[in-house]
Amino acid sequence: PAVRPSSPYVNHRAVDSSVHVAGQLPFKDGELLGQGVLGRDVDLEAGRELARHAALNALAVAAEAVGGLDRVRIVQMLVFVASTSEFGQQSKVADAASDLLIDVLGENGLHARTAIGVASLPLNAPVEIQMVCTAV
Amino acid sequence: PAVRPSSPYVNHRAVDSSVHVAGQLPFKDGELLGQGVLGRDVDLEAGRELARHAALNALAVAAEAVGGLDRVRIVQMLVFVASTSEFGQQSKVADAASDLLIDVLGENGLHARTAIGVASLPLNAPVEIQMVCTAV
Amino acid sequence: PAVRPSSPYVNHRAVDSSVHVAGQLPFKDGELLGQGVLGRDVDLEAGRELARHAALNALAVAAEAVGGLDRVRIVQMLVFVASTSEFGQQSKVADAASDLLIDVLGENGLHARTAIGVASLPLNAPVEIQMVCTAV
Repeated sequence: PAVRPSSPYVNHRAVDSSVHVAGQLPFKDGELLGQGVLGRDVDLEAGRELARHAALNALAVAAEAVGGLDRVRIVQMLVFVASTSEFGQQSKVADAASDLLIDVLGENGLHARTAIGVASLPLNAPVEIQMVCTAV
Repeated sequence: PAVRPSSPYVNHRAVDSSVHVAGQLPFKDGELLGQGVLGRDVDLEAGRELARHAALNALAVAAEAVGGLDRVRIVQMLVFVASTSEFGQQSKVADAASDLLIDVLGENGLHARTAIGVASLPLNAPVEIQMVCTAV
Repeated sequence: PAVRPSSPYVNHRAVDSSVHVAGQLPFKDGELLGQGVLGRDVDLEAGRELARHAALNALAVAAEAVGGLDRVRIVQMLVFVASTSEFGQQSKVADAASDLLIDVLGENGLHARTAIGVASLPLNAPVEIQMVCTAV
């Protein structure tokens, strides 16, 4: 399985009250949990599970950035779903990530969201999630 | 025709002076105005018309968020165009959305813009638009 | 070769301390330096070189926006790589852009980054880069 590459780069960066979280893949314990494209290699339920993991990773970065999970307020989430040109259920994939944020954070988990279908993602991951958050 | 799904999520969220508008599809009166991919199913003029409608929907959210159309100042617009790998006229599609914002808002409609071609979009919409705006 | 279209639009726009830089293609002296898709028409090294040029163009806009290169602090970079559905090295393409920013700006060049593979880009460019920066 693909392993997380070491990176010299930072995983978040702030300006004013906005914390920009770098794109997060569905890694768990250093292993990418799936590879491929929705509509061809990966079914909807698997895609939703991968979206939850990517969201958890983004949330972990956010919590570290603002000083604790109870201080995280999500502002914006961009969900990239590797998709065939016929796949149109990106919102359902992204809903799994949105629901997780709202389950964990309540009102502070609400966010403006965009979900799109991309040709492919780093390491052939099926899902990648980018966030803007702030501290409450 | 595809109908807009009900959503438990918010369509905008603010941090400091920035209002992030969630990705908007070319819906009108609850109906998606087109489906498919530029370069295969949807021609340039149809894509431009769909971009205008997506921009109008984003503008409506922005106006609601800042307390009126005359208070909206656009900052950034990200235009996603469902495209074949050979299609290269995403800027012309996005120009229709940019021109609409400038026609409606004048100087306040000017914005930093990015246009890209994606594999597919929710509900197989040909265009999706995400914005950052602020209040004047 | 493709030439840069004239545009009535602005290439950056600020809100609070954030400067949003419009999506930049790998133009040099008014000419697009390459066309096509990674994984089919463009190899990894060529993609990395194009990413450097797109990053340089984004950096030039940022410098103009904040009043000089020595005042630029990068916050976020979104790297779009035109890709086949099998290509998974978008991070390696984007690393070339990230490394350039850090080489030029040092600590101020560090940024939250997202790299994705898209179906196609304006003018069939292989790489496009969007940034958020601020002034130091």
